Amino acid sequence: MEKVHGGDIYSYERKMLDFSANISPLGIQPEIIEAISKSYINADKYPDTEYKKLRQSIAEMENTDAKNIVCGNGAAEIIFDTVHAVKPKTVLLTAPSFAEYEKAADTVNCRKVFYTLKEENGFALYEDYLKLITDDTDMLFLCTPNNPTGRCVSDDMVFRILDKCRKTGTLAVIDECFLDFVKGGREMSALKYIDSYKNLLIVKAFTKMFAIPGIRLGYGVCSDRELIDKIYSTRQPWNISCTAEAAGEAACLIADRVIKETADYIEHERDFICGRLEALGIKYYTASANFILFRAFEGLKELMADKGVLIRSCSNYRGLDGSYYRTAVKGHEDNIKMLAALEECLWQRR
Amino acid sequence: MEKVHGGDIYSYERKMLDFSANISPLGIQPEIIEAISKSYINADKYPDTEYKKLRQSIAEMENTDAKNIVCGNGAAEIIFDTVHAVKPKTVLLTAPSFAEYEKAADTVNCRKVFYTLKEENGFALYEDYLKLITDDTDMLFLCTPNNPTGRCVSDDMVFRILDKCRKTGTLAVIDECFLDFVKGGREMSALKYIDSYKNLLIVKAFTKMFAIPGIRLGYGVCSDRELIDKIYSTRQPWNISCTAEAAGEAACLIADRVIKETADYIEHERDFICGRLEALGIKYYTASANFILFRAFEGLKELMADKGVLIRSCSNYRGLDGSYYRTAVKGHEDNIKMLAALEECLWQRR
Repeated sequence: MEKVHGGDIYSYERKMLDFSANISPLGIQPEIIEAISKSYINADKYPDTEYKKLRQSIAEMENTDAKNIVCGNGAAEIIFDTVHAVKPKTVLLTAPSFAEYEKAADTVNCRKVFYTLKEENGFALYEDYLKLITDDTDMLFLCTPNNPTGRCVSDDMVFRILDKCRKTGTLAVIDECFLDFVKGGREMSALKYIDSYKNLLIVKAFTKMFAIPGIRLGYGVCSDRELIDKIYSTRQPWNISCTAEAAGEAACLIADRVIKETADYIEHERDFICGRLEALGIKYYTASANFILFRAFEGLKELMADKGVLIRSCSNYRGLDGSYYRTAVKGHEDNIKMLAALEECLWQRR
Repeated sequence: MEKVHGGDIYSYERKMLDFSANISPLGIQPEIIEAISKSYINADKYPDTEYKKLRQSIAEMENTDAKNIVCGNGAAEIIFDTVHAVKPKTVLLTAPSFAEYEKAADTVNCRKVFYTLKEENGFALYEDYLKLITDDTDMLFLCTPNNPTGRCVSDDMVFRILDKCRKTGTLAVIDECFLDFVKGGREMSALKYIDSYKNLLIVKAFTKMFAIPGIRLGYGVCSDRELIDKIYSTRQPWNISCTAEAAGEAACLIADRVIKETADYIEHERDFICGRLEALGIKYYTASANFILFRAFEGLKELMADKGVLIRSCSNYRGLDGSYYRTAVKGHEDNIKMLAALEECLWQRR
C-alpha cells in the first residue's frame, strides 16, 4: 500500500514531531478522555444502528434536525459511502485537493472532471468553476477551506454553486472538516442552506477539532432523507463504535468553547508561523485554518525528518509537485521547534 | 430504517434481557476492558493504515502470515468491502442465512442465486449445493455454523466447495464468526486451506467471542494479496479505531484460554436449554454454537418482550417465517430466566 497521507508516524523508528497531520494543538479535552475510558461499559452491546443519541447531540451542536445527520467512521467513510450510494457517472473535483474524493470516485469507475486551482491565483476558486457544473455532473466535491491550500471558498460562491447544482441535478458534497478552525467559520458554513438545498451534503469530522483521529468519527449533514437512507443501506448497519459514540456526545457538549478557543489560538500561531516563513524568504499561500501550504525545494521532507520533524510533502497532490509542503499549525513550542528545523534545513542547503 | 437484526435493545423503554444477540456469556475480559480504557492514549494520532501490530497479533493467533489478514470495522465491514472490491455479477447465497450477505450483494445490483436449506433436512447443506457453483458464480457466501440455524458445514464439504470454486473461478467467502464457539471448531476451520486456495476468504470477528460488539473489530483471512489490496483501495484508509486496535491486540493474547473456556461453557448450557425445550415440547434444530433455532408460534417474541426477555424473531430471514425464533445461549441464571418466561408464554397460549 502506498502512503498517500499525513500522520504516518509509523514508518519511522524514532519519535517524530508530527506536523504532517492537522490535529488541533489544544489536544484531547479531559471530558473526551473520560468518555473514551468509560466507553467499555457499552462495549458488550451492539451499537444502536440509528445512533439516536449521538445524532441528536450533533444536531443540537449544528442547530439542525437530527434526521439530517448521518454518522461515519471518520469523515472519510462518509465520502466513500456517499459515492457508493450515489454511484455517479461523472464527478467534478478540484486539484489540488484531498485525495480521498478521487479515490472514492475511482471505486465506481466514474469520469472525473478536474477544475485546476492555479498557483498564480493563490489557488483561489473562480467563477469559471461554475461552467464545469453541467447536466452530466452527478456529484461534485468541494473542500473549504481547501486541503492542502488552506483557501476558503467564499460564501457568495458557495451559494452560486448550490444554485447551479440544483439546476443541473448535481449533488454538492462540501467538505467543511477544517472550517471550524477558521475565525468566523461557523458563519461561513453552508449549513444555512441545508433546508433549502436538498442537493447539498456537508461533511464534517470530530477528528481534527477535538484531536481524536484515532477514534474515527465524522458526519454528514443533508436534508435529502432519501439520500441518507441510501447511504445507510450501502454499508454495514453498525459502523459507529460505542467509543466513538461516547466521545462524540462528550465533544458536542463542549464544542462551543473548544471551537472558539481553538480558532483564536490557531489564528495567533498561524500568524506567527507565516511571519517566520516570510522572514526566511519562504513562499507560502493564504491560509485560514490550522495548516499552511508553502513552497521550498525537493527533499525538504527528508531533511526535516532527519531532524525529527514530519511535514507533509505535497508531491502526490494532483496539480502540485515535490517543491510544495503542508505544515500543521501546532502548539507554540512545537511551532518554534519546527521553524528552527526548517531554518537549519535552509542553511544546510546553501 | 427497518430493524432487521438482533441486539436492538434501543427500541424498548425497559431494560431487556437480550437473547436476540449472540454475545459470549463470559462477557468482556478484564484485559480487554483495560485496553479500551487506556486507548485514549493513541486517540490523538491517525491509526496506522496498515495496522501492522494488530495484523501480526491476529496472524499469530490464527497461525498464519500477517500479510493474509485484512481488518474491518466489524466482520460486517469485511463483507461489504469484499463485495465492493469484487463487484460480482452473480453471487451464490444460502437461505436462511445472515442477512448482510444479501444486503451487500444488493449494493452492486448483482444476480443472486439461492440454495435453500430445508427444514425437513434440519437445514443441512447437501451435495446438490455444488451444482449451483458454476462458471457464472463470481462469489459465494457460506456461514458455518450457519446463522440462524446453528448447523456446521462439514469439513469434507468445505473442501469440495473450495475445489469446485477453484475450477469455476469463484471467490468463496466463508463466515466463521461463530466457529470458535463450537467444540473442536478450530480443527474444522477452513484456515488450513488458506495457503493452497487463493479463492478463499474467511471472515471472523472479535465481536461475539470477546463480547465486544460495541468496539467493532473483525477480520478477513485470505492468501490472495491482490484481493486484499483491492479491498484496501475500495474503502477509506483509516477504518480501524485505536480502541479496536488495542482491544484486538489484548484479545489475541488471551484467545486460547477464552475460546476453550467459552466453548466448554456454551456446550454445557446449550445442552441444558435444549433439554428444557424438549421437555416443553418445543421443536428445535441441531445447534453447535452459542445460539439455538426453534419453532413455536407467531407472536411469541412480543409475549416474551412483555416479560422482559428479547428473543430474535426469524420472520425476516429468507426461507423462514414468523414461527421461527433464535435464542442465544447465555449465562446459566439468565438461561433459567429465559426458559421460565418461555414456559409462562406457552401456558398463556393454552
